[in-house]
Amino acid sequence: MRCISLTMGTVISAAALLAAGPLYAQSDLGKMSQNANDWVMPAKDYANTRYSTLNQINTGNVGKLQVAWTFSTGVLRGHEGGPLVIGDVMYVHAPFPNTVYALDLNNDGKILWKYEPKQDPSVIPVMCCDTVNRGVAYGDGKIFLHQADDKLVALDAKTGKPVWSATNGDPKKGQTGTSAPLVVKDKVLVGTSGGEFGVQCSLAAYDINSGKLVWRGYSEGPDDQMLVDDKTTALGKPIGKDSSLKTWEGDQWKIGGGCTWGWISYDPQLNLVYYGSGNPSTWNPVQRPGDNKWSMTIWARDADTGVAKWVYQMTPHDEWDYDGVNEMILSDQQIGGATRKLLTHFDRNGLGYTLDRETGELLVAEKFDPKVNWTTGVDMNKNSANYGRPAVVTQYSTQAGGADHNTTGICPAALGTKDEQPAAYSPETQLFYVPTNHVCMDYEPFKVSYTAGQPYVGATLSMFPPAGETNMGNFIAWDGKTGKIVWSDPELFSVWSGALATAGGVVFYGTLEGYLKAVDAKTGTELYKFKTPSGIIGNVMTYQHGGKQYVAVLSGVGGWAGIGLAAGLTDPHDGLGAVGGYAALSNYTALGGQLTVFALP
Amino acid sequence: MRCISLTMGTVISAAALLAAGPLYAQSDLGKMSQNANDWVMPAKDYANTRYSTLNQINTGNVGKLQVAWTFSTGVLRGHEGGPLVIGDVMYVHAPFPNTVYALDLNNDGKILWKYEPKQDPSVIPVMCCDTVNRGVAYGDGKIFLHQADDKLVALDAKTGKPVWSATNGDPKKGQTGTSAPLVVKDKVLVGTSGGEFGVQCSLAAYDINSGKLVWRGYSEGPDDQMLVDDKTTALGKPIGKDSSLKTWEGDQWKIGGGCTWGWISYDPQLNLVYYGSGNPSTWNPVQRPGDNKWSMTIWARDADTGVAKWVYQMTPHDEWDYDGVNEMILSDQQIGGATRKLLTHFDRNGLGYTLDRETGELLVAEKFDPKVNWTTGVDMNKNSANYGRPAVVTQYSTQAGGADHNTTGICPAALGTKDEQPAAYSPETQLFYVPTNHVCMDYEPFKVSYTAGQPYVGATLSMFPPAGETNMGNFIAWDGKTGKIVWSDPELFSVWSGALATAGGVVFYGTLEGYLKAVDAKTGTELYKFKTPSGIIGNVMTYQHGGKQYVAVLSGVGGWAGIGLAAGLTDPHDGLGAVGGYAALSNYTALGGQLTVFALP
Repeated sequence: MRCISLTMGTVISAAALLAAGPLYAQSDLGKMSQNANDWVMPAKDYANTRYSTLNQINTGNVGKLQVAWTFSTGVLRGHEGGPLVIGDVMYVHAPFPNTVYALDLNNDGKILWKYEPKQDPSVIPVMCCDTVNRGVAYGDGKIFLHQADDKLVALDAKTGKPVWSATNGDPKKGQTGTSAPLVVKDKVLVGTSGGEFGVQCSLAAYDINSGKLVWRGYSEGPDDQMLVDDKTTALGKPIGKDSSLKTWEGDQWKIGGGCTWGWISYDPQLNLVYYGSGNPSTWNPVQRPGDNKWSMTIWARDADTGVAKWVYQMTPHDEWDYDGVNEMILSDQQIGGATRKLLTHFDRNGLGYTLDRETGELLVAEKFDPKVNWTTGVDMNKNSANYGRPAVVTQYSTQAGGADHNTTGICPAALGTKDEQPAAYSPETQLFYVPTNHVCMDYEPFKVSYTAGQPYVGATLSMFPPAGETNMGNFIAWDGKTGKIVWSDPELFSVWSGALATAGGVVFYGTLEGYLKAVDAKTGTELYKFKTPSGIIGNVMTYQHGGKQYVAVLSGVGGWAGIGLAAGLTDPHDGLGAVGGYAALSNYTALGGQLTVFALP
Repeated sequence: MRCISLTMGTVISAAALLAAGPLYAQSDLGKMSQNANDWVMPAKDYANTRYSTLNQINTGNVGKLQVAWTFSTGVLRGHEGGPLVIGDVMYVHAPFPNTVYALDLNNDGKILWKYEPKQDPSVIPVMCCDTVNRGVAYGDGKIFLHQADDKLVALDAKTGKPVWSATNGDPKKGQTGTSAPLVVKDKVLVGTSGGEFGVQCSLAAYDINSGKLVWRGYSEGPDDQMLVDDKTTALGKPIGKDSSLKTWEGDQWKIGGGCTWGWISYDPQLNLVYYGSGNPSTWNPVQRPGDNKWSMTIWARDADTGVAKWVYQMTPHDEWDYDGVNEMILSDQQIGGATRKLLTHFDRNGLGYTLDRETGELLVAEKFDPKVNWTTGVDMNKNSANYGRPAVVTQYSTQAGGADHNTTGICPAALGTKDEQPAAYSPETQLFYVPTNHVCMDYEPFKVSYTAGQPYVGATLSMFPPAGETNMGNFIAWDGKTGKIVWSDPELFSVWSGALATAGGVVFYGTLEGYLKAVDAKTGTELYKFKTPSGIIGNVMTYQHGGKQYVAVLSGVGGWAGIGLAAGLTDPHDGLGAVGGYAALSNYTALGGQLTVFALP
């Protein structure tokens, strides 16, 4: 632990540190994640690869896949995330009210225990884009649930009884919980949602034994709140003092968003945690001059202290709600003849980034959908004043036309070329498998005033497929070394499901209509599909039990793309423009909340 | 049409009759029901056999059954009934708010149309035993939905657009709709729920084209309200004038129950419709002296006029809530060397009855669970004054102990040895396949006053398995000619799912834990089971499409047995005693609402 954290962390309690029990008690979680039978963390491993070495199900036999058993969560609306499997037990979560089940894998999913938080339903309208939850985390014999009301609760993994709970934020102010925690050593890391409510967002670390806050690093504001120091760099250069404050007008940073509701990665060797910060608030760019640092940023923080080692802002002064929260996938690949420690990230803004995860050096930034039109690309000239900055096409600048101007035909739409739906990486093919949105938008900013706990959006949107096209999604394979699409499978709607890559040469994903699909990792050729009960926005996972490989996924249409169905909205502009864009979804599926588990006969 | 109906029917409109269009327009529905590919009425055919001549899936291959596709209804709570299939379209219904879907069988269940009634949710607490609905009916190019609010709605089967709607009752007075309509010729027949609210219940016939009421026959009251006449018989003898009024104290018949929410059968040759009437209100027998005719009665009514040809009261002066609503299965079998037109009925009171359906002659009345203890049996001596009457065991009479006495250990419990969950009949094996409850109760009546629209129950119940046993259900094969159990498969909980018998020698049913099971029709040997998302209280059906046989069932735990889970009740006496009795169900399943469709690989 670096002493610097004690002076710079905002809410660090020395007592909490002393009471934390043996440090690094969870250093074995990384090892557990290497056991192919289990799925012990949201993205399978700390590198967020969503890759399994299981190969019993492979390209030769996946066509014979069958449904082995199923389970209804008892909850409707959007089911993001996916289950964990540890030994004989599967842990399944649900959207609000965030019911958690422990299911017995030896007995067709018999319920070992059930935990149903008592939460004030007034949190529901404060959740911008459905009442989703992206899953629980495991560590130290506990299951960690990040509730909608922004409470972090530790449950005894054997009994489901609460061990401790921590209040991470206040839903009355718009702070909510949707993201999955990540356990790193003796800490539980958790972010915050609320970018549409003017929340100043942060990543927080809680002691795994006591639930006491250990550190909290904000996305914007004074340096001590952000946990940045004179060694923190951006693109190789120190960010310097007040790097954030300088980029906001007045104290707008206090309601500046930069929320942290995406997935978290961790490199045990570098002891760095990686995640992205979201859109600056409000969505009306005219109202908040400046680069709005460090919203829209990839963060690399020391796991023990929270101090940022490096940052990289992808979309300075966002004009489109291109949240930077999407997952960081860690891989070691050869670039320029040398094996590099890489971080690959598919941003809402439509650019696929590859960076050196040790230094934050930008290696690749390319469009992962050719229709992306708001930028001509990122300036890769290290000597340029604009190095690392995307060049904005004036036609698609939502503030260039002045106040209340409707900017039309921007690609991607606000929900991005990819949203939270996580990609997978196969070390065998060295390809990333990316669920994408193929959606454009009209965007009309309007002036909005801030009131705590009230929507602070300031833009009216419409969404639609690119001109002349009907498919609103693609499932693609991406070479992160070169920034090239290797193959692309069109889908009728956005692919809002997390991908799974396996050593069987098969990649899995779900569709909004409800299909689980298996494709050849090398070619994208469809090998299997099955219509699950409801649209899939969950993440596919796999495990092995009793010598048999299983593939599992949650169905339950909703999330931003499915908000019309989920919340019963009908005005096309509702759901931040998604209701109109995805209206045809109601021809294919209805609300649900089910786990479907597949296996070979 | 017999003229007598015009003089005796209570609400017959001559104008409605004139506007009814060509009589017998739906005489082809009976023919359609013989097409094995389709499933055009709730119980497969007018005889309510739930038997299919399809045999692609048979005892030799059913073990290889797979899930072909699935569909979530978007609704939680108890899913009773099952889908219809007509050609390329499947019609799926849901509990309140009673959404109806038309699904495209050529396209993995793509939604062709969806109909979601706007209903006042205040109807929910007026539904005694969950917000269930037992399915839609088809006829004349229309789909008929009996809504929770007791409206009968005709939808265009092609578009889902409402064609007409009729108000059958008033939910503010406790009249609700849960039962499936039946189309007979040019009429739609529909019953009423509300026996726990002091409703005077009836069976009503609406004109298929206009939705105008054609006839309505009440279960109790004056002869003209009941549509009985001097030819109406009970056990071969005319019932005589005022047969009902004589058996009630004062005008208690006006709040006398006798509800009609079960399945309806029809014999086209005899032109008789068959159904049962339910419990007399209140459940406190001390409060309503007399036999309370014609509650608890099998009714045979003329399909055109509604006039009753014969009646048979199974449980005079009910003391246990042994509703007589369960289905009447029509078969032709040999008894005493002659082929008889039979009607077989498994009553809540634990007796399996076989009658001559033309005359109402009682042929067999035997216990279909050996634990039934409230009666020593039915007096079968035609010369006895008690002919056809069950002998009550005083120890289990709930009024013998006087007011507020808790009578303990009565078998079966109020929900009966069987409730609405329909049995199936195979003409091949000449056996009935009966889903049963194996549950006993304590029953304590208390004085209750009638207020329109308020519960009028008057008894506190506890439910539990028979002493020394743990299984709360059995799935049995029954010989209706002899009144004997041929085989019996124990189940952990009540079998609350409707059975399906097939020419493949396989019988299907679902369990409250959520298993779909296939057993050998001859032996009961389990051949296949699959864990569906939620507990099954739906009815299994089968159809053939594109040359392939499919088996389908709705999951969605609830109904009376699952009311604790469905309504979130925890007091063991709640749900009329079911909450405590079925508490362990929450260890196995959670709420849901899904269709699962099975086929061979």
